Amino acid sequence: MREDLIRPGERVDDLQRDGLVLLQDPEKFCFGMDAVLLSAFAQIRRGDRVLDLCTGNGILPILLSARTEAAFLTGVEIQPEAADMAKRSVLLNGLSEKVRILEGDIRRIRELLPGEKFDAVTCNPPYMGKGDGIPNPDPARAMARHEITCTVFDAAQAAAAVLKDGGRFFMVHRPHRLGDAAEALKKSGLGLKRATFVHPTAGKSANLMLLEAVFGGRDYVRVEPPLILYREDGSYTEEIRKIYGYGE
Amino acid sequence: MREDLIRPGERVDDLQRDGLVLLQDPEKFCFGMDAVLLSAFAQIRRGDRVLDLCTGNGILPILLSARTEAAFLTGVEIQPEAADMAKRSVLLNGLSEKVRILEGDIRRIRELLPGEKFDAVTCNPPYMGKGDGIPNPDPARAMARHEITCTVFDAAQAAAAVLKDGGRFFMVHRPHRLGDAAEALKKSGLGLKRATFVHPTAGKSANLMLLEAVFGGRDYVRVEPPLILYREDGSYTEEIRKIYGYGE
Repeated sequence: MREDLIRPGERVDDLQRDGLVLLQDPEKFCFGMDAVLLSAFAQIRRGDRVLDLCTGNGILPILLSARTEAAFLTGVEIQPEAADMAKRSVLLNGLSEKVRILEGDIRRIRELLPGEKFDAVTCNPPYMGKGDGIPNPDPARAMARHEITCTVFDAAQAAAAVLKDGGRFFMVHRPHRLGDAAEALKKSGLGLKRATFVHPTAGKSANLMLLEAVFGGRDYVRVEPPLILYREDGSYTEEIRKIYGYGE
Repeated sequence: MREDLIRPGERVDDLQRDGLVLLQDPEKFCFGMDAVLLSAFAQIRRGDRVLDLCTGNGILPILLSARTEAAFLTGVEIQPEAADMAKRSVLLNGLSEKVRILEGDIRRIRELLPGEKFDAVTCNPPYMGKGDGIPNPDPARAMARHEITCTVFDAAQAAAAVLKDGGRFFMVHRPHRLGDAAEALKKSGLGLKRATFVHPTAGKSANLMLLEAVFGGRDYVRVEPPLILYREDGSYTEEIRKIYGYGE
């Protein structure tokens, strides 16, 4: 491990897959189950060029480099500190040939990636819209949670701008934004194709949703079997254990 | 039972609730589980004035007259034969004081019900959109299944035209139309508030969805626990038994 890549206050998390690690700042940028579920939901094919919007500390491209046979993965992050952590995590894992992190604003994605087209785009955007509570006083946390620099509409527009015809967009979001997400996809020319709702237990309302849309496709949605996180005794369900790679 | 109200080829079905019956034409207008699930999903309050769009043989208003404390229920149906059957079912059940059936086109709802406003609107519209297979050669069946005289957009527009501010719209539809339904609601000023996805079994994709939207409300969706129809042994789940009123 190259200790010189780790800054004070940062934590090195074991991703429990292929020996991968990830730099985390417990005060600011920590990935959650959302990112892991999205990495399992995204159907990336061999040879795909993949773009991750709002990549934060780079969890998605780093996880996808191990979970899939993508040819090349790019992550874009607007916050300099997070982008810097993501870049150092790429170095720590020796993934420089396969994963690239760019600091930039997804609302100017065409300037950031002139001429480049992608087979698949992933995004774990800020969940909270206007009126969804008061943003965190810490700007980094506020930007990661509230739609300050990246709305669901910005994410869909950026995906549409860089996807090939028939290219796929995979997004995790909160179910309360279902209407907004559907509208954003529709307005961006992305046809909604697949949705999985994630419930803490079988008897509880969903707390996450995973959406797949196809650029240039018409809306025709398959709502997959519900993904239940916990059994009644509090242990992970079989599906979640599989996603996390336990017992493999 | 007034036999004079029953036409040749019609069947009198026992609704298994309060002694209610319903005329059905097995060749044309039969209600399914969809209508029963919608009647349970629709949260009708005491004293509500309720409108059912695309009422078919009147299953929704007749079921809701027993399941809820609605003050008055109106059903609108464009097909003369179905509207006639619905009217006779109202008479058969002695519900003329509480349920009214109108023959008419929901695209002209304001002409049909001038000045009237409703607390709640329900709708079990045709499910199939453009490109969803070939319509049935029988016009009555085709109109009940394909969006010929009533699209999901027509339904949302009609609901918005007659709902009070804050009035609620309850719809059952197929999940593959989720994107279209969300768009239709949004464009009609109906804020999506609640969604239940119905799965044949816990491990299968959803085959129905139930949506609630509020006129004048903002989108803020609660995706409720999945509603599972059958256990693995093929018997109804406890939730479905409750909805059907078994064991009450």
